[in-house]
Amino acid sequence: MAIITLTTDFGVKDHFVGALKGTIYRELEDVRIVDISHDVSPFNIQECAYILENSYNSFPEGTIHIVGVDSEPTPENQHIAVLVDGHYFITANNGVIGLITSAKNPEKVVHLNIPNPTHGSFPVMDVFVQVACHIARGGTLEVVGRPFNELKELRDFTPTVVDNGNRIIGNVIYIDNYGNVVTNIHKNFFEAYRKGRSFELSARSTKVHHIHNKYSDIINFELDKGQRKGAGDLLALFNSANYIELAIYKSDLKTVGGASTLLGLDYRDTITVSFT
Amino acid sequence: MAIITLTTDFGVKDHFVGALKGTIYRELEDVRIVDISHDVSPFNIQECAYILENSYNSFPEGTIHIVGVDSEPTPENQHIAVLVDGHYFITANNGVIGLITSAKNPEKVVHLNIPNPTHGSFPVMDVFVQVACHIARGGTLEVVGRPFNELKELRDFTPTVVDNGNRIIGNVIYIDNYGNVVTNIHKNFFEAYRKGRSFELSARSTKVHHIHNKYSDIINFELDKGQRKGAGDLLALFNSANYIELAIYKSDLKTVGGASTLLGLDYRDTITVSFT
Amino acid sequence: MAIITLTTDFGVKDHFVGALKGTIYRELEDVRIVDISHDVSPFNIQECAYILENSYNSFPEGTIHIVGVDSEPTPENQHIAVLVDGHYFITANNGVIGLITSAKNPEKVVHLNIPNPTHGSFPVMDVFVQVACHIARGGTLEVVGRPFNELKELRDFTPTVVDNGNRIIGNVIYIDNYGNVVTNIHKNFFEAYRKGRSFELSARSTKVHHIHNKYSDIINFELDKGQRKGAGDLLALFNSANYIELAIYKSDLKTVGGASTLLGLDYRDTITVSFT
Repeated sequence: MAIITLTTDFGVKDHFVGALKGTIYRELEDVRIVDISHDVSPFNIQECAYILENSYNSFPEGTIHIVGVDSEPTPENQHIAVLVDGHYFITANNGVIGLITSAKNPEKVVHLNIPNPTHGSFPVMDVFVQVACHIARGGTLEVVGRPFNELKELRDFTPTVVDNGNRIIGNVIYIDNYGNVVTNIHKNFFEAYRKGRSFELSARSTKVHHIHNKYSDIINFELDKGQRKGAGDLLALFNSANYIELAIYKSDLKTVGGASTLLGLDYRDTITVSFT
Repeated sequence: MAIITLTTDFGVKDHFVGALKGTIYRELEDVRIVDISHDVSPFNIQECAYILENSYNSFPEGTIHIVGVDSEPTPENQHIAVLVDGHYFITANNGVIGLITSAKNPEKVVHLNIPNPTHGSFPVMDVFVQVACHIARGGTLEVVGRPFNELKELRDFTPTVVDNGNRIIGNVIYIDNYGNVVTNIHKNFFEAYRKGRSFELSARSTKVHHIHNKYSDIINFELDKGQRKGAGDLLALFNSANYIELAIYKSDLKTVGGASTLLGLDYRDTITVSFT
Repeated sequence: MAIITLTTDFGVKDHFVGALKGTIYRELEDVRIVDISHDVSPFNIQECAYILENSYNSFPEGTIHIVGVDSEPTPENQHIAVLVDGHYFITANNGVIGLITSAKNPEKVVHLNIPNPTHGSFPVMDVFVQVACHIARGGTLEVVGRPFNELKELRDFTPTVVDNGNRIIGNVIYIDNYGNVVTNIHKNFFEAYRKGRSFELSARSTKVHHIHNKYSDIINFELDKGQRKGAGDLLALFNSANYIELAIYKSDLKTVGGASTLLGLDYRDTITVSFT
């Protein structure tokens, strides 16, 4: 059975997601629709790219991913379909799949030739669903689009390196459900410049000199409970997506706060790593 | 396979939605359950009516829609099932399907005769699920209820017209995920009174003289980017549901704000259109 | 078809839930995944226990429940699988299923022997999904774990009884989508100590002397509408889970407020019942 995933900034209150699913089920009796996220911040391409990169390849090959973020077609934001790493993406050409296509060469990219209605503002339902159902029925991309080689890259995502490779200047790219702060510094990138050296990671006035591999690594279970670090303590770690993340152990944004609130860090803020 | 949709004000944190789905799957092995929304504002009949109107007929005919908003049965809020436009609705008789039944004559309306438990406060699970499963198995409405002809209308939804048809006084009926402000002035209603004339739409101190057909219509792509209107600019448009909507191009309620916050408009506020 | 439910504190914005579902579908073609809740407050064991207790047995026997709250494995937080009341639970041994196992004796409890990756922080995907799919394919718990008899109980959940059984001191354990305040005083517990006596329930400065069976019980439908109690009035009732709940009739946290905001009650606050 074909799988169609949905990643949008529609939210889950409005009628949009329900209407989308109804339209798919009207077209296809046997299909599995899976929500990846509908809570991407409105028009936030980087956030969407991060969510997609970290979920798409959990799904079986051949999965069809509809991406409904910043999808209104304009002369500068064309509708495309992309086959990459065995997965189909139907999206506007705005960089949302840039983290995936920067790591893997796309097998096919087409510019969709399905006309949009002249009014109404719901291209995901009017166009993307048609294309998804066409692919789910075994159709090819060539039937719904023409080859295209101007895939937009994801802007402002890669950290910059200064001081002859002695300093990485990165950014906050994502703040997760626990208030943990995800940077755009990938483990591979970090290690390539580190070359075994010591380092200091700075985020505003906070300094960190060690990066852990899981949250509970800061706890010394041989100490009595009263003497251990624990809930509320800060750590840096390589998260499950392999990016450097600043986290508060067992944080809760609504009560004790998370790394984002306690360190005063927001989306796009600077994180620096200096090697010595 | 039967499709049962859920539209409620239960939220998605509590156990209610999970318990509801479990109960359906315990009754029916082969059924598709689709969430339309669980984030209707508590007891908000108008919001629920707008969400249902704009999603139900994306689904195939024969779909069964459970509506769990203000559903506790009282002598003045009876449980009913309605077949209209080929779709089944199981709901309290409180106007939530009033936008649908005002446009299409119901084929059947029954007052449900399934008794409620004498205590406990979860009629959607105790009664609506039973009725939905009965219909999904091919059962008729006559078996679960008796004919009924006092379907409640949706109150306060239609705009009023004053000054011999020269002025429409409407209201804000919905604020969407982007902060866009939806009015109760439908395109057909607007055009019927406009008769080709010029108009001024007023919302608090904001005046608008043009209604677009999609969000990006305010952008002149022939200008250089620095000279164009763009993110943050206001427009009015006929939305995908064909109601007049006030929107901020590429708004985000959490950062730059949306039309609701920037124009100071809330649910039920007045919007006026004057023709000249 | 096997049913796997998900109850986590992951939220629905991040990639976690999508990645989890993709991983399950990659393992199993025919399975039904049902979200119970992803909005458990981070690391809140009591909230999770309450949600699970009130939803799990709506599902058919044999359902597999993955519980992803406080699930990072540590020497003091081991991964277990439990068969109780005909349902499978895969969880850390932290008390989240304590309300269920305190009422029903578990049929089997095993300590999972599937190794965790040495880095990365997503045990629910790496371990729990494997176990769930193993069970869904008809596998036994003995294959994935070894018998274990140190199931943790849920702490601080049961109310205390003082004054020779004349006073119950309970706590707020849950605040629902409407702002209704749920206490840990179960109807059976209450009636066992009440023994037919009068009582006064106190929550801060609020006193209540009657407990209703449903929300609308406070309305006298024989009075004219203007003379009735109604939206905004306080009541206590045995909720659909049979716990004492303080509620505001037709509350909305975002507008008029709910019992939690109007009475100033929060999670863990004290509720007292005195019998006279």
